[in-house]
Amino acid sequence: MLLSNKAITSRDKDFAKWYTDVVTSAHLIEYSNVKGCTVFEPNGYAIWEKMQEVLDSMFKQSGHKNVYMPLLIPENLMKKEGELINGFAPEVAWVTIGGEKELDEKMCIRPTSETLFSDYYASKVKSYRDLPLKYNQWCSVMRWEKETRPFLRSREFLWQEGHTVHASKKEAEEETHNMLEIYKEFFENYLAIPVITGKKTEKEKFAGAEYTLTVEAQMYNGVSLQSATSHYFGQKFSKAYDIKFLNKENKLEYAYQTSWGCTTRMIGALIMVHSDDDGLVLPPKIAPNQVVIIPIGDSDEVKSLVNDTYNKLKNSGISLYIDDSESTPGFKFAEAEVNGIPIRIEIGTRDLEKGIITITRRDTKEKYQIDKDTDIITYVKDLMNTIQNDMYAKALKRREEKTYECTDIKEVEEIMNNNPGFVKAMWCGNPECELKMKEIKGTKSRCILENEKPISDKCVVCGREAHDLVVWGIQY
Amino acid sequence: MLLSNKAITSRDKDFAKWYTDVVTSAHLIEYSNVKGCTVFEPNGYAIWEKMQEVLDSMFKQSGHKNVYMPLLIPENLMKKEGELINGFAPEVAWVTIGGEKELDEKMCIRPTSETLFSDYYASKVKSYRDLPLKYNQWCSVMRWEKETRPFLRSREFLWQEGHTVHASKKEAEEETHNMLEIYKEFFENYLAIPVITGKKTEKEKFAGAEYTLTVEAQMYNGVSLQSATSHYFGQKFSKAYDIKFLNKENKLEYAYQTSWGCTTRMIGALIMVHSDDDGLVLPPKIAPNQVVIIPIGDSDEVKSLVNDTYNKLKNSGISLYIDDSESTPGFKFAEAEVNGIPIRIEIGTRDLEKGIITITRRDTKEKYQIDKDTDIITYVKDLMNTIQNDMYAKALKRREEKTYECTDIKEVEEIMNNNPGFVKAMWCGNPECELKMKEIKGTKSRCILENEKPISDKCVVCGREAHDLVVWGIQY
Repeated sequence: MLLSNKAITSRDKDFAKWYTDVVTSAHLIEYSNVKGCTVFEPNGYAIWEKMQEVLDSMFKQSGHKNVYMPLLIPENLMKKEGELINGFAPEVAWVTIGGEKELDEKMCIRPTSETLFSDYYASKVKSYRDLPLKYNQWCSVMRWEKETRPFLRSREFLWQEGHTVHASKKEAEEETHNMLEIYKEFFENYLAIPVITGKKTEKEKFAGAEYTLTVEAQMYNGVSLQSATSHYFGQKFSKAYDIKFLNKENKLEYAYQTSWGCTTRMIGALIMVHSDDDGLVLPPKIAPNQVVIIPIGDSDEVKSLVNDTYNKLKNSGISLYIDDSESTPGFKFAEAEVNGIPIRIEIGTRDLEKGIITITRRDTKEKYQIDKDTDIITYVKDLMNTIQNDMYAKALKRREEKTYECTDIKEVEEIMNNNPGFVKAMWCGNPECELKMKEIKGTKSRCILENEKPISDKCVVCGREAHDLVVWGIQY
Repeated sequence: MLLSNKAITSRDKDFAKWYTDVVTSAHLIEYSNVKGCTVFEPNGYAIWEKMQEVLDSMFKQSGHKNVYMPLLIPENLMKKEGELINGFAPEVAWVTIGGEKELDEKMCIRPTSETLFSDYYASKVKSYRDLPLKYNQWCSVMRWEKETRPFLRSREFLWQEGHTVHASKKEAEEETHNMLEIYKEFFENYLAIPVITGKKTEKEKFAGAEYTLTVEAQMYNGVSLQSATSHYFGQKFSKAYDIKFLNKENKLEYAYQTSWGCTTRMIGALIMVHSDDDGLVLPPKIAPNQVVIIPIGDSDEVKSLVNDTYNKLKNSGISLYIDDSESTPGFKFAEAEVNGIPIRIEIGTRDLEKGIITITRRDTKEKYQIDKDTDIITYVKDLMNTIQNDMYAKALKRREEKTYECTDIKEVEEIMNNNPGFVKAMWCGNPECELKMKEIKGTKSRCILENEKPISDKCVVCGREAHDLVVWGIQY
């Protein structure tokens, strides 16, 4: 009903404009009259719900429980851990008036909740028997960004933040790595987005973390997107917030913590990796509607096969709908395309006379005319698998084509200026070399690869001795 | 692990203290260092997740879609509808600083989102073909309360707010009534709480509504709790926010709106209706864990039957866990009790020698020794049904015992002072008579009953002519 049929700018002509065209044409987000904030419309929110469903189940299966912490953080509590407040101070929103009265102490809207979880854990954790506590929350957070882009950067966004507390360094570090693996699995198996994982440099890590592990994805235009992060805190927060426990030797010890999160930005990644000039393309495993059935003509035979097909697919757990609105078939096809429905089934009078129905894949636009008596459940399930795998393979192939190895900064410059992508290059560990790289169209270190062979022994920037193989990229 | 074993105050001795004892002993909520805000701990949040799951499915089945609106509302937008801002102004929190800068216009944290939905609908609705739009959101809201009580009244709480827009008065009024019915069904069939429904008086209706329908429940101590509301707005907001559409006659018309909501307060209702001096009692349909299996002894026979029973129940959709922690059986029983697990299954070496296992109901504490070869799936499912029905029947019986008809204000005074409950009495429609009633321990009109026979023709307060049969109660 609310379909906007306006043309979508070509992706190869103007990527940024194409992106916002897809966002609005597929009715994912609407700009609001609240500066820097957006309205998640039904189509956009449904993708987030699907992401939540999958991730929440992965979190629970790995022993995590959901909780909910307050939205507001009193200034004093926020200030206890110095690096965190320094990192976030410039971008928080402060509540100064409540119930018509000036507050004695201002409170910020959570930009992240390490402070509140740590304060809570301090009151709960007494003994090693209480540990680990592995909690997660789904909520919105606020960071006062100046420039905003739908899903990628906005003042308010939706996310999950896991916060765990452990009795040993080893266990906390394992948690940090396990959560990274869960994110990687989610990106690759559900979003059909290949990712690179590794450790952030000191400069790029989370404020307050001992180290940050990251999931990095490459978009269609070669630009990098930090897609999920998992932080190891060691005892930094437990010392600041006084989270102590009696260990097995009956001695007081500060606890070990982690946090990890991913956001509605993942919807942006889905768009920028898979979508095309006709709108959204969604992998079947994350599509709120996996199939649409479009009746053409209204003979009894059409109606009966439409209902029969609908019921068969519905009962085997496939999410789908019938588009029996009053619009023309052409309009319905365009709408299903712009909304990224993975499989379209047309059941029409003329086709049925020939004993066939028509199936169209959204990702490749391929059409298949199949016998109307085909076992539709198996057919659709197989096709969904094929689409899911093909989408991943296509994204992986493109990423591989746009991943380069460089030993000379001039090569990096050449690449980032003409056909950007991931650049693998050695780095000496000096932040000044990172700053030099940044002069090339804002190129930043994405992560340090942990188990890959060095490609040289010299820093790509300064030529000094280097041991770290780093992935570099222009970033969103 | 985190079980606090402290004694729970007797419910009949000190109801308020009993209530907070149950809340903390069952680890539902923890007070936080953010004044007026609480931490939803895993046990409390899991109940909310279960409520969300059931209600969300009921909303979706009745054609509603989820969206997400911004957290902040600019002052000007908030002020467009006068009654709403007057109603909420004294209790909102204002953000005045963002990103270290004083804002040009302050923004409040949403106390409710009529403004944002209306502003959005104004941009979306053009023609009767766009209508209805039936959207809902799950989020937190903030109201700067002075006195707070866990679940019942807090500065921040979790809720859902549905906001719909329609092409006709008739359809919008139907929606208002349909949502009331959905809430009633949820309370009665899932929470096992009998409710009274009706219309709020002018004095008690929602700021900005033409009328408010309400779901009212009675707690164990006879006090009333407003438990969910459904508002009909007519064209009030559409005129303030300019939501116009071309109707079938091709004329511009203002749209008709509703909103409806329920909150985490429902968890408070669950406690105050069903729980007892040993802690939480949950109806099986809303319990996050419906069954706990407690092994006693560690013989192979015990282990094998424990696992077998767990798998059978799990595979038939029952949520359960095995308590194989190191605590004593007595401790485990107490923990399952305080947490309100509806059914406890003990599988022990000595029982098995006699060929039996022991089942205990949380609601009545009745124990059943059953043959170990009993069809456990059918047995547990039947018992869950029985518990669910018995809990409802018990709550209904108590409410009926504490529901009175009065024709004389002295009777009302007598009842509210000694054994409060719902008082049905006639009312002339004058707000001054409501104020007179309020002098009796804060007694307020709960709702006007719509389809019940009048019990007299005179106002219980002033003796003048009266047509409305009103339910009155002391309120939370």
